[in-house]
Formats: sequence, structure tokens, C-alpha cells
Amino acid sequence: MSSDRIAPTARVHPDAHLAPDVQVGEFVFIGEKVRVGAGCVIGHHAVLHDGTRIGAGVRIDDHAVLGKRPMRAARSATTSAVELPPASVGDDSLIGTGAVVYRGCTIGARVLVADLATIRERVTVGDETIVGRGVAIENDTSVGARCKLETNAYLTAYSTVEDDVFVAPGVLTSNDAFMGRTEARKSQFGGPTIRQSARLGVGAVVLPGREIATEAVIGAGAVVTRDASAGQVHLGVPSRETREVAPEQLRANGG
Amino acid sequence: MSSDRIAPTARVHPDAHLAPDVQVGEFVFIGEKVRVGAGCVIGHHAVLHDGTRIGAGVRIDDHAVLGKRPMRAARSATTSAVELPPASVGDDSLIGTGAVVYRGCTIGARVLVADLATIRERVTVGDETIVGRGVAIENDTSVGARCKLETNAYLTAYSTVEDDVFVAPGVLTSNDAFMGRTEARKSQFGGPTIRQSARLGVGAVVLPGREIATEAVIGAGAVVTRDASAGQVHLGVPSRETREVAPEQLRANGG
Amino acid sequence: MSSDRIAPTARVHPDAHLAPDVQVGEFVFIGEKVRVGAGCVIGHHAVLHDGTRIGAGVRIDDHAVLGKRPMRAARSATTSAVELPPASVGDDSLIGTGAVVYRGCTIGARVLVADLATIRERVTVGDETIVGRGVAIENDTSVGARCKLETNAYLTAYSTVEDDVFVAPGVLTSNDAFMGRTEARKSQFGGPTIRQSARLGVGAVVLPGREIATEAVIGAGAVVTRDASAGQVHLGVPSRETREVAPEQLRANGG
Repeated sequence: MSSDRIAPTARVHPDAHLAPDVQVGEFVFIGEKVRVGAGCVIGHHAVLHDGTRIGAGVRIDDHAVLGKRPMRAARSATTSAVELPPASVGDDSLIGTGAVVYRGCTIGARVLVADLATIRERVTVGDETIVGRGVAIENDTSVGARCKLETNAYLTAYSTVEDDVFVAPGVLTSNDAFMGRTEARKSQFGGPTIRQSARLGVGAVVLPGREIATEAVIGAGAVVTRDASAGQVHLGVPSRETREVAPEQLRANGG
Repeated sequence: MSSDRIAPTARVHPDAHLAPDVQVGEFVFIGEKVRVGAGCVIGHHAVLHDGTRIGAGVRIDDHAVLGKRPMRAARSATTSAVELPPASVGDDSLIGTGAVVYRGCTIGARVLVADLATIRERVTVGDETIVGRGVAIENDTSVGARCKLETNAYLTAYSTVEDDVFVAPGVLTSNDAFMGRTEARKSQFGGPTIRQSARLGVGAVVLPGREIATEAVIGAGAVVTRDASAGQVHLGVPSRETREVAPEQLRANGG
Repeated sequence: MSSDRIAPTARVHPDAHLAPDVQVGEFVFIGEKVRVGAGCVIGHHAVLHDGTRIGAGVRIDDHAVLGKRPMRAARSATTSAVELPPASVGDDSLIGTGAVVYRGCTIGARVLVADLATIRERVTVGDETIVGRGVAIENDTSVGARCKLETNAYLTAYSTVEDDVFVAPGVLTSNDAFMGRTEARKSQFGGPTIRQSARLGVGAVVLPGREIATEAVIGAGAVVTRDASAGQVHLGVPSRETREVAPEQLRANGG
């Protein structure tokens, strides 16, 4: 368990399993039954809660927290709720400084989770996706492979994002069209669906339940109040279909 | 003071007072005269600065900082400024991972302060309010009870938010109509006033000093340049009054 | 090296050089060849990576990280890339709680970097500039002196911001007009240029490569799709030139 690669101040549970060459920084906490693969480097003050599974070649930066349990009041009657599976991170991924990954979250291989990003429970992130600095992915969301979610983009709970999607900085989504009122809202509650190879411009806003179809482009600052059709550019407040996406920009054409 | 519920690496000041059943994580710092009530659970690397008062049943997550003093230059002549009262957190509240709560801040009971939220000095937050992930509440702001401030919403300094207000993700406010120029601005400096049961949609922007009246609704992406009238829906850039709020959505009707 | 001003749990490399009166909090890590000037105060859990240079009178708050190396896959063939120079922070500056400053970043004197701000590699920040709470400054960006970047403002990579610029809360910028497609984008890739004394209103969005000229004002929520002319107010989506900036607000007139 111990070696000269593990800082003397690190607290590693005796029932954690670290590959022999793992490097562990100062003041790190590694809980019970955590597994860390070969070649991983764990920064100072990182926290790996019990059960967390880290693949090989992963870099985890200072102050990152993995395997956080969702927050419920300390005295809540629901603390006996169904236990989530451990958080897992695939091979050769990177977890940034101060990032928070919840228990019940599955992150693929070669994923970059940048500084101060938060990823909630029951989220999956596909291989080679970039989760930018400060991005928040709320619970019960799936994000495909090779997506790029840029700085401070926000994916609300119950969002679906397919493969090869581009989400520019500061894009906002929402899932409650009634903003907290009426019983009816509960049946209509839902995040956006963003289909394969769609792209959303900087500062775009997507209303609850809207679908952005394959290869659609949403312009900078656009407010998407209706479903956005495939392969078209949608601009304005509210957004309107304006023209076809330039053929050389289509993923289908190798763009 | 010490018990097997307190991690061996935690640094607890001898003049702090923790209820006997409090759990304290690894590498926690608890300062002088801090008081922590029964049933609290404090995560790893949390910092409770001197004097901080925590009620009963509070959960404080990893890396949270409570009781931070406002920043002034280390050599500033004003470091002898009036001392703020300690930060206080009411019973059964939750403080998320990496959240920062300043000295001079009063948080009610059953409040959720989610991950990476920051709450500045001279702020009050009413009971059962949710302060979402990444929300920033600047200094000298009051937030009522049962409000919901969603992910990354931003309340500028000198804002007033009454009870039962809903603020969707990414809502922005501001308080300086002159953007840092002229002496005249100092007399007109002021945040928004958001009256009881008002609701602001995702990505809405509110200009300095504007009032959002009771039960008003601001649409997604709207830019509020004038006061928004009660019980009306306001849409667009700049926002205009467009229709009455649906009666079943009014809080007054049990919506 | 050690003194009663250095917390007993702090880990200070024997080849770090701290002025005799520096205060160091609990669980701090200070790496090899770090230099810290007279009168500095370093909060709990702060991390100063190897080589970081801190001037005199600097306050570094809890959980701040300075000198972080950019993230590359742990097993990447490019980890032998050119080494960046150490991070440096000028006299009397302040670094907030949870802020992250990368290696290769130069911060001037009397700068405030507020809580949870992140500043990437090859960034310069001029004297007396305020980098607000949650602000992200991406790599290869220069920010002048006496600027004010307010809460959650976002500067994309390869941005240029001259002196005395005001950037309101939540302003967004971008640098890839092709949103990740085509080879042609690589030659047109570029952040905004924001000239001296320009001001951007709350929630404004700036498209890739646009120039905001001297003393220009961009209105709240405006989307800047074309270059913005000097000394004019630009409003709307997309933004249009509407009137001259009021003379008393011009910096040239002492505004």
C-alpha cells in the first residue's frame, strides 16, 4: 500500500487498492475499497470517496472530489434511499482542480473534466468528451462520445446529448417550463435532447424539452423556443430557421 | 473535544465547541470559538473560521469554507474596518462541496447551499431556500424564504429578493448602470428588487435598480430594462409585457 | 524555514524561500523553489506548486492553487512539451478562495483575483485589475491594467483586453466561428480584441475575432456580431450602433 510515491500526509484506507506506481499528493484522502489503476497521478488535497474506481493513466488534480454522495438533510428520513453505484473514471482521463464527480456517475476513457466542473449522479460521459472548465452536468443526463462542452456550459437534469455535439461557452438549458408551479409541470418536466453532431453557439439558451436535431446549428445568443430542424442554422430571439448549414461543416462530409 | 468521530488529522481549536456526536473529516480546520450543533457531519478539508456558528443536523461537504473574511490588500490601511459578526448556518441546512460562506452572512434553517456557491458578507438567506450549484450572492443582499436560485444564477450586491422567488439557471443581474464611470453613478448604484413569488426564466438579464413585481414572470433570455409589472409575463429583448400569468400558476391560487 | 507563523501541519519544501514574517495556514503545500515575499498571508489548504513566485504583501486564501501545470493525458506523448515559466504574483495582490492560477501566468501588483476564478497559462494580468468571482481567463490572453472583470465573465483563449476595460457580470466571448468544424477554422481562430476603456454590459456576448474599439459601450444582453466602433453605444441582438457615449462617461474626460 505505502511507497515513496505516496505523500506522507496522505490518508489511504487499508482496504483501498492502488497500483504500485500510483502517485498520491499531500493531504489526499482515499476511502475504503477505492481502486486506482496503473500510472495514475493524484494531486494534493484530492478526495476519493469509498468505492470510487479509477482506470489506468488518469490524472486527478488538486482538490478534486470523486464519489460524492448527493446532498440530503443530515436528519432526513430519506437517507436510506437506494445506494448509488460507485463513481468510475475510464483510462487516460483527466479530472481538473476542484472538480466534483458524484457517486453514480460513469466517465469514459480519455475524457477531460476541466477545473471546477461538476458532474452529478446517474450521469454518463462518453469517451474522448471534453467537459470544460466550470461546466455543470446535472443528474440523470447522458453525454455521448467526442462531445465538446465548453467553459461554463450548463446541462440541466434529464438532458440527452448524443455523440459529437459541440456546446459553446455559457450555453444554458432548462427543464421546468412552469418554473416551479402547478402539478402539471411534473408530467412535462424534461431537459433538452441534442442530437448527433449538433452545435450550439456561445450564450445560446434552450427551453425545456426542446430537441436540437442532427447537425443543426444554433447561433450565438439564440433562444431556442421550438424544436430545431436538422442541418439548419437557427438564429435569433426566439430562434428561427434561417439557412442550411454549409456542407463543408457537416460531420457527415468530414467537416 | 476529541472523539473517534473526529478524524485524527483534523485540527480543532481547543476553544471550539462541538456537540458530542459531530463527525469531522480528515484535514478539517475548525477555528477558535466555532460552535457546531448536534448531529452535524463535516466533510474532508472543510474550513470553519473562528466564531462560525453551525446549528444542529447540518451537513458540510468537502472543501467548504465558512466564515471567510472579505478580501482587502494585506497591507491596506483599511484592515481595521468594522469587524463583521460570525457566519451562522441554521438547523438542518446543507453546505456543498467547495462552497464559500463569508463572515457576516446569516443562513436560515433547512437551506441548501449547493457545490461551489459563494455567499458574501452581510447576506441573509431565508429558511428552506435553495442556493444552487455555482450561484453567487454578492454582499449586502437579502434573499427570502423558500426561494429557488438555480445553477449559476447571479445576484449582484445590494439585491433584494423576497419570499418564494424562482430564479432559473444563469440569470444575471447588475447594479451599476454607468459601468464604472462618473460620480453620479454612486448615488444611483443598486441591485434589483425581486418581489414575492416572482419568477425569472433561464438566462434572463436584469438591469440595475429594476423591480420585478409580485408574481411577475420574466421569459427565458429576456433583458429587463424597465420595471416589470405584477402578475404579467414579460418577454423579449428588451422585455415587454405580453400577457397575464396563467391563473393556475399564481402562488396566490396555490400554484 | 519554520517559525510559529507556519502551521504545524503545513508541508513546506526545504528549498522554498519564505520571508521570515510569512504566515502559512494548516495543510498548506509549498513546493520546491517557491518564493514568498514579506508580509504574505497564506490560507489553509492552499497549494503553491514548485517555482511559484509571490511578491510582498500578498494574501492567498484557503484552497487556492498557484502554479498548476496544464492538463495533458498522463500517458500522453506530449508531456515533454516546452516547460512553462513559473507563475508569478505581484506585490499586494489578493488570490481568492479556490482560485486556480496556472504556471506560465503573470499577475501584476495590487490585483484582486476573487474566489473560484481560474487563470490559464500564458496569461498576463496588469496592475490593479480586478478579476471577479468565478471569472475564467483562458490561455494566451493579455489583460491590461485597471480593468474590472466582473463575476463570471468569460475571456476565451487568445483574447486581448487593453487597459481600463470594464466587463460586466456574465459577459461571454468565443474564438471559434466554425464551432469545431473544417480545417479553415484554424486560420481564423481568434478571441476578441477589447480596446482601451471599452465597456461591455451584463450578459453581452462577443463573437469570435470581433474588435470592440476604444471607449465603446456594449449594452446589456447585446450580441456583438460585427466590430464595434469607438465611443459609440451598441445595443441589441445582433448589436447595432445607436448613439454616442455620453461625454461625461468617457475616460478621456475623466469619467
